[in-house]
Amino acid sequence: MTPIEDSRLSSAELRETWSFLTAQERREGFHYLDRTERENLFLSVSAYDQAQLLAELPAEERRAFVRQLPPDDAADAIQSAGPELRDDLLARLDEPTRAEVRALLAYAEDQAGGLMNPRFVRMRPEMKADEAITYLRKQTLDQHTTIFYAYVLDEHQRLLGVVSFRQLLIAKPDTTVVDIMRTELVTVSEHMDQAEVRQVFQRSRLAAIPVVDDSSRMKGIVTADDIVDVVEEEATRELQRHGGLEALDAPYMNVGFWGMLKKRGVWLSCLFLGELLTATAMGYYEREISRALVLALFIPLIISSGGNSGSQASTLLVRALALREVSLRQWWRVFYRELLVGLGLGALLGLLGLLRILLWPARQSLYGEHYGIIAVTIACSLLGVVLFGTLTGSMLPFVLRRLGLDPATASAPFVATLVDVTGLVIYFSVASVMLHGTLL
Amino acid sequence: MTPIEDSRLSSAELRETWSFLTAQERREGFHYLDRTERENLFLSVSAYDQAQLLAELPAEERRAFVRQLPPDDAADAIQSAGPELRDDLLARLDEPTRAEVRALLAYAEDQAGGLMNPRFVRMRPEMKADEAITYLRKQTLDQHTTIFYAYVLDEHQRLLGVVSFRQLLIAKPDTTVVDIMRTELVTVSEHMDQAEVRQVFQRSRLAAIPVVDDSSRMKGIVTADDIVDVVEEEATRELQRHGGLEALDAPYMNVGFWGMLKKRGVWLSCLFLGELLTATAMGYYEREISRALVLALFIPLIISSGGNSGSQASTLLVRALALREVSLRQWWRVFYRELLVGLGLGALLGLLGLLRILLWPARQSLYGEHYGIIAVTIACSLLGVVLFGTLTGSMLPFVLRRLGLDPATASAPFVATLVDVTGLVIYFSVASVMLHGTLL
Repeated sequence: MTPIEDSRLSSAELRETWSFLTAQERREGFHYLDRTERENLFLSVSAYDQAQLLAELPAEERRAFVRQLPPDDAADAIQSAGPELRDDLLARLDEPTRAEVRALLAYAEDQAGGLMNPRFVRMRPEMKADEAITYLRKQTLDQHTTIFYAYVLDEHQRLLGVVSFRQLLIAKPDTTVVDIMRTELVTVSEHMDQAEVRQVFQRSRLAAIPVVDDSSRMKGIVTADDIVDVVEEEATRELQRHGGLEALDAPYMNVGFWGMLKKRGVWLSCLFLGELLTATAMGYYEREISRALVLALFIPLIISSGGNSGSQASTLLVRALALREVSLRQWWRVFYRELLVGLGLGALLGLLGLLRILLWPARQSLYGEHYGIIAVTIACSLLGVVLFGTLTGSMLPFVLRRLGLDPATASAPFVATLVDVTGLVIYFSVASVMLHGTLL
Repeated sequence: MTPIEDSRLSSAELRETWSFLTAQERREGFHYLDRTERENLFLSVSAYDQAQLLAELPAEERRAFVRQLPPDDAADAIQSAGPELRDDLLARLDEPTRAEVRALLAYAEDQAGGLMNPRFVRMRPEMKADEAITYLRKQTLDQHTTIFYAYVLDEHQRLLGVVSFRQLLIAKPDTTVVDIMRTELVTVSEHMDQAEVRQVFQRSRLAAIPVVDDSSRMKGIVTADDIVDVVEEEATRELQRHGGLEALDAPYMNVGFWGMLKKRGVWLSCLFLGELLTATAMGYYEREISRALVLALFIPLIISSGGNSGSQASTLLVRALALREVSLRQWWRVFYRELLVGLGLGALLGLLGLLRILLWPARQSLYGEHYGIIAVTIACSLLGVVLFGTLTGSMLPFVLRRLGLDPATASAPFVATLVDVTGLVIYFSVASVMLHGTLL
């Protein structure tokens, strides 16, 4: 036994640990599986990983593997592959599938058309149930996708109704399809955005939804498992944008050093340029700081409290907008709620700050004889900054949506940067009023 | 026509705008629908809203409505209702359904058992296909849930195999069920956590997965639409935790003032207490600030850059851990990647900071004659703080997971707070080395 064979993973182990392995480990593990195990593994991984595996396979196996995929999954894998591999893979498909896959590739990835499977079970409205079953037997059904409904089309491929296999199964043999089909149809249009498709799906709770074009001709079906992927994918994009970076659109481990630097560096630099304004603002207050150095001590505390409360508010409203729990027109209702909550939270932190200074044993030596008025200054500033942070964080997602941008761009760092600059202005304005005649 | 009737919404409008309406508007709109429209609307809204609607309904209609729900949805609605309503609703169910719902309520909401529908189509292995179809006709199938498979059980209710309706439909009438059933089964155990169920679902791409107990007796099925809800729900919880607050576990508009204050105030206060350490840290550097006031100008810039880079890193790793793109044991591999990326990003921001000071027209009047060495101090501090922020943000999710806590607790504000205190220490340490003999 060679050392390499010693470290060989079983098929089950490999599938279980797949997502944790390096490209190198995957390649070696895959290489040692037998053909059937390899095919099973190939079918169970993501489109991205399928493309990677196809790239590694010897040319003669590549054809066999890519032909195992149903057209929608083949299109996804081909989309994830590099440009040269893309043409090679297309060429290896059989003629009718290639035509289907090409049609799918013409849709944007995040449209109903880009999600759908163009293969589905068709029947005609005038068929009897037993004829329909015979016809069903004849149709070469795709073995890799589970399909649950038969779609009833007219001679122009227009969708008339839908019959579940269960209904067909329990119908009397001489019932006509038109009598058992459901005609209150839930459909999505081929160019509908995937986020909207998801909503239709969640409202209807169907396992598959037909995709139709503008003349209600049926083009394919979107199934539940596609929707699970959409929800997962959108949540990841939203979270990453909200964390203050560009969405990676690939697994963490698969993004190289330069790609990672770009996705994070661009936003980080923009935030940095915004944050430079704090240095400018601080410049204006240099005189105040020099006269009352004690003011400087609380700068990080005050601006970060504003940033934290803003981050909370923007998180809540980004999500509420994404889940359609609130609409754009309801901004004033949210404003009113957040005004109250912001006042509450500001009062809470203000009180904590007040107590911290007034009750601290070394208060006199740390903050000087005027520690009482300083404590009140800090408390009032906290109230103002937290209120401002809460309102900024909650309104920014509405503003971005109104401008046609993604509300998730109202990231915690973005809100914090906005609030930092304003927080300083609030703090020093409060201080100059409060401390006038004593320290300033 | 009374003014109230004027403002009446049609059934379709109501369903479309449902999630945007206030409790008051919903109540009124619902009131004006006819019975069928009301039932349709009731069945299409979330379990939370179903509970609200049930609470409002007159006692005599309540029974009719709650009985429309399949047992798993009834259990969800009852779980969402207040304690008094809960018993009232249970009492209104028919006896066998009540037993099923009670059994479901015994499971935690986020376990396979809490998600499953206990009704499914059963058959025996020795049946012929045509017998199986007759038997299927006899079974009273639940009309509100789409079920796609028949499950083959032995006399002890142990799961032997699964047959899709399509297979049954296209089989020859005298084939035995045992010959067409699939026996490579994907199952989940009744106490499996919903996040794990989701993973099994995503790997298998089935429309329904059977739930079994420890003796492989079948208890129910989990369907694709349940999984979509799970993915959505977990993404919301993750995002909210990551935004630095407790997960709301209810739609934004449905959380009252005090509830909202609590969910946000607790974390905000904890962060505030942590952030108080910045005031303590600043106290130690009061002498340095008084001698070189220019240092104070850059404090917000430096600590927020650390916080922003930390927020990016923690977002990426929280998500990568949730999607199982990285495992706990791979922390060192992530550490190495983030070390490189952190150095890159730190160098980038350091350079931007250096250029900003050196090329600013008013540099001499703003920063004094030693502006060159100050620029270098700022650049080195940025490099150190961004690197530290990146490493803290990327490692904290691993530490939390290792301690058995939710990695999403490594929120942007939490990471920022950790980095703020350390950032000040880094900044003033660099400054005291660099500026020794000139300004300090």
